[in-house]
Amino acid sequence: MQLLNATATLGLGLALCSSTMAFAAEPITPIEAPTDVDAAKAEIGKQLFFDPRLSKSGFLSCNSCHNLSMGGADNLPSSVGHAWHQGPINSPTVLNSAYNLAQFWDGRAADLQEQAAGPIANPGEMAQPHNVALEVIASIPGYVESFSNSYGDDRIDLERVTEVIAEFERTLVTPNSRFDQWLTGNKQAITEEELEGYQLFKGNGCAGCHNGPAVGATLYQKMGLVKAYETDNPALGRYAVTGRDSDRMVFKVPTLRNIELTYPYFHDGKVSTLEEAVQIMGEIQLGRRFSESDTAKIVAFLKTLTGEQPDFALPQLPPSTPATPHPQPFGP
Amino acid sequence: MQLLNATATLGLGLALCSSTMAFAAEPITPIEAPTDVDAAKAEIGKQLFFDPRLSKSGFLSCNSCHNLSMGGADNLPSSVGHAWHQGPINSPTVLNSAYNLAQFWDGRAADLQEQAAGPIANPGEMAQPHNVALEVIASIPGYVESFSNSYGDDRIDLERVTEVIAEFERTLVTPNSRFDQWLTGNKQAITEEELEGYQLFKGNGCAGCHNGPAVGATLYQKMGLVKAYETDNPALGRYAVTGRDSDRMVFKVPTLRNIELTYPYFHDGKVSTLEEAVQIMGEIQLGRRFSESDTAKIVAFLKTLTGEQPDFALPQLPPSTPATPHPQPFGP
Repeated sequence: MQLLNATATLGLGLALCSSTMAFAAEPITPIEAPTDVDAAKAEIGKQLFFDPRLSKSGFLSCNSCHNLSMGGADNLPSSVGHAWHQGPINSPTVLNSAYNLAQFWDGRAADLQEQAAGPIANPGEMAQPHNVALEVIASIPGYVESFSNSYGDDRIDLERVTEVIAEFERTLVTPNSRFDQWLTGNKQAITEEELEGYQLFKGNGCAGCHNGPAVGATLYQKMGLVKAYETDNPALGRYAVTGRDSDRMVFKVPTLRNIELTYPYFHDGKVSTLEEAVQIMGEIQLGRRFSESDTAKIVAFLKTLTGEQPDFALPQLPPSTPATPHPQPFGP
Repeated sequence: MQLLNATATLGLGLALCSSTMAFAAEPITPIEAPTDVDAAKAEIGKQLFFDPRLSKSGFLSCNSCHNLSMGGADNLPSSVGHAWHQGPINSPTVLNSAYNLAQFWDGRAADLQEQAAGPIANPGEMAQPHNVALEVIASIPGYVESFSNSYGDDRIDLERVTEVIAEFERTLVTPNSRFDQWLTGNKQAITEEELEGYQLFKGNGCAGCHNGPAVGATLYQKMGLVKAYETDNPALGRYAVTGRDSDRMVFKVPTLRNIELTYPYFHDGKVSTLEEAVQIMGEIQLGRRFSESDTAKIVAFLKTLTGEQPDFALPQLPPSTPATPHPQPFGP
């Protein structure tokens, strides 16, 4: 009887603890916009992000494949690049990408600034040699003035261009999702079913990789941990960066923030629905077969991770001048 | 002496008249946004305008070629379409297009609503059969709800889809340019050089075609009225619509509003600079060779026609569902 009492007391103590410290105990933490953004630089970066003149064709911008009207992605299995080149991998969302431990699926760029340089010059993406992209920007008085105002002189080089784009991307954070409201104390923010979905998500080990403020993006993991993932996509993940056999099929764990908006799923973009994605993850990462009912609950939880989307006026781009190199959409 | 007095009095009377009625006497009139817009329909139209799911690829939207960050055009000689198809003609600006007497360079669509249907299904543009585009929209709960709210039922057909797009496009008016400020009484709004440019524009007959609120768009005119226009673009203008020999090379006179932003120029997009465009127009339409100095003044005037650009938040698009037909960017 005394033992029973002691257990009951301990139980009550734990319950109190888990109630008052719910926030700290959760593997997912609220996501927040940075407070140290250089607004002027981010504003230039926003214009450049939307400016197709960074591409050889004059037709593709960062926003073409990281469309901020559509969850920061293109909702295609793999992207369309210069001359309709079929991209090799699914375009990851730019939303909350500042939280990624590194950039690209294989983490080959250390940060957003390093990442930003890649697609501009990649022949299968924007296909614009960096020197031409810089010449274009430097020929546009609106940009020259903005850079001068921000940097104190009118030098326009790749470091500054990628710095301002990265500064803009740092602002692309999606706070205040219903799940974050729940995390920060509003227990009515999510439904019973969604909460059950979260408990299944935690209890089955999903949160082992998908945790932290971005619900992922903090580590690399093998795609197909307990069972090989079947795909005809030739990407090998981290192996391409490290050359280590153990890194074959090891990819950056993607963020699950706004996952409702960033279909299709996985690095090959082969999976269209969250239901299928959850079931495949269960099978190949956890060795579990989720019931339809559990899958539905987990999916319901995942949809609570949709946060406030970018909210700013459509940028207006400064016009070209006769000195601006012409875009080359067609031809060699 | 009496005659002289009478003449002087008459002259004074005319001067007063031209001063008090300056506004009415000008061939160009201020442009104004419509006051009868159905805001809810325009809001759906705005989303659809930015939605690449209207295209077969899921990659091209109305905004791809009528980019509202770049004067409502794509700043390319001719546009990029599905599978990187090279368009046959320069993409006209969507800004102030409600003022066009008809749509497309050859006027083959009577109005914006009729126009909107064309590029969606055109195999060289968005390449999406109308029935698939409608199926896509009808599969997206966010759209179904918006249409229901606006129309009282959830029917989604081509008529409604093009109606809301046209309603949005009606809002794309660019008022309050410096020239319009001058027209409405602020004589400091333009410089002396710009005013001289306007006087040259009127005095040399440019305003014969480029007049009214859109500074054009009210009539068709032969491209090469006094001297043939040299181009390798095969478009024949109105002839394609009427089959009349007299309509060969007759095109809709384009608006000159925001002309600073809508380079390159003419239906073939062959001319990059306003200076060259003005000189060619002088030569082939008016039989005049403008001096460099006069050209510069006319160009200075034309740049005063840049009005307030679209100012609204980047639209957020409602997500697809498992029922949404998949985009087909690659393959047949």
